[in-house]
Amino acid sequence: MLLLALGSLAVRNISEIPQSDFGRGGLSHITIAGAVLHGMKEVEIWLQTFAPGSRTPIHRHSCEEVFVVLKGKGTLMLASSSHKYPGTPQVFQLYSNSTFSIHVNDPHQVLNTDEYEDLQMLVVISRPPVKVFIYEDWSMPHTAARLKFPYYWDQECLHEPKDEL
Amino acid sequence: MLLLALGSLAVRNISEIPQSDFGRGGLSHITIAGAVLHGMKEVEIWLQTFAPGSRTPIHRHSCEEVFVVLKGKGTLMLASSSHKYPGTPQVFQLYSNSTFSIHVNDPHQVLNTDEYEDLQMLVVISRPPVKVFIYEDWSMPHTAARLKFPYYWDQECLHEPKDEL
Ligand SMILES: [Zn+2]
Ligand SMILES: [Zn+2]
Repeated sequence: MLLLALGSLAVRNISEIPQSDFGRGGLSHITIAGAVLHGMKEVEIWLQTFAPGSRTPIHRHSCEEVFVVLKGKGTLMLASSSHKYPGTPQVFQLYSNSTFSIHVNDPHQVLNTDEYEDLQMLVVISRPPVKVFIYEDWSMPHTAARLKFPYYWDQECLHEPKDEL
Repeated sequence: MLLLALGSLAVRNISEIPQSDFGRGGLSHITIAGAVLHGMKEVEIWLQTFAPGSRTPIHRHSCEEVFVVLKGKGTLMLASSSHKYPGTPQVFQLYSNSTFSIHVNDPHQVLNTDEYEDLQMLVVISRPPVKVFIYEDWSMPHTAARLKFPYYWDQECLHEPKDEL
């Protein structure tokens, strides 16, 4: 029993954790420590790499999120949750060895705006697994944003096995 | 008001965040995103570098903790909270690009056991600011572990200014 419990805590090699784009072109996502995969209850950590030109959707989630930029350059678009819709976002430049935090429910988007270089980031969220509300554009009302849950990287582990008919 | 609120979210250069050993020889600690410094409520992230031979105390805390090893080699000593005292810890080897998670209240210690190289890690905790219970050794009862709060890196910001008499 004790050995089994400790087994889930063992040191893991990040290079051996499977990565996938989960259907989003230009993305490489690795869950370093997650709710669905590793039983985390309060924090979750991802390693994400965005190819030039790729981006997250415009989205919000009711958790804190912190980004640590390991490599590359990019852009953060950040709006507020205090009006009926996000509105014109503030624009911030991202660079290697920079960090930024997203407050609970603030709509945001992260883009690799560089022409050549990958953008690699460690992403930390609270309250896993993440529940993402997606906006089509910055003028969509908060109430119209579409819930995507489970999110792509939590889906494969949560879905029921299908019967082969 | 909106601009002020967004100011606290601005992108920060990690190289420009002050580091200190906070009185612990061989440590370099940087709070990348913290409760006391940056108003985080659910997660906190540190960048810590341990010189050869340096270590954390044996300790526990009632939060989740995830380590991502960026550079170097080290050792994790990990015990359980299910007996009266930690007892002989399990020993795990740490290496660059490895990760491990500490469950709530499990006593643990991280050591740079390499002779030459620094051990550098990103550390993520939930429920900030951290409340640390320190053990003198692995046979000290959990109830005797001494609470250190605020912890060293939160102390400078929390303490009251002293009157000069
Ligand atoms: Zn997000
Ligand atoms: Zn700890």
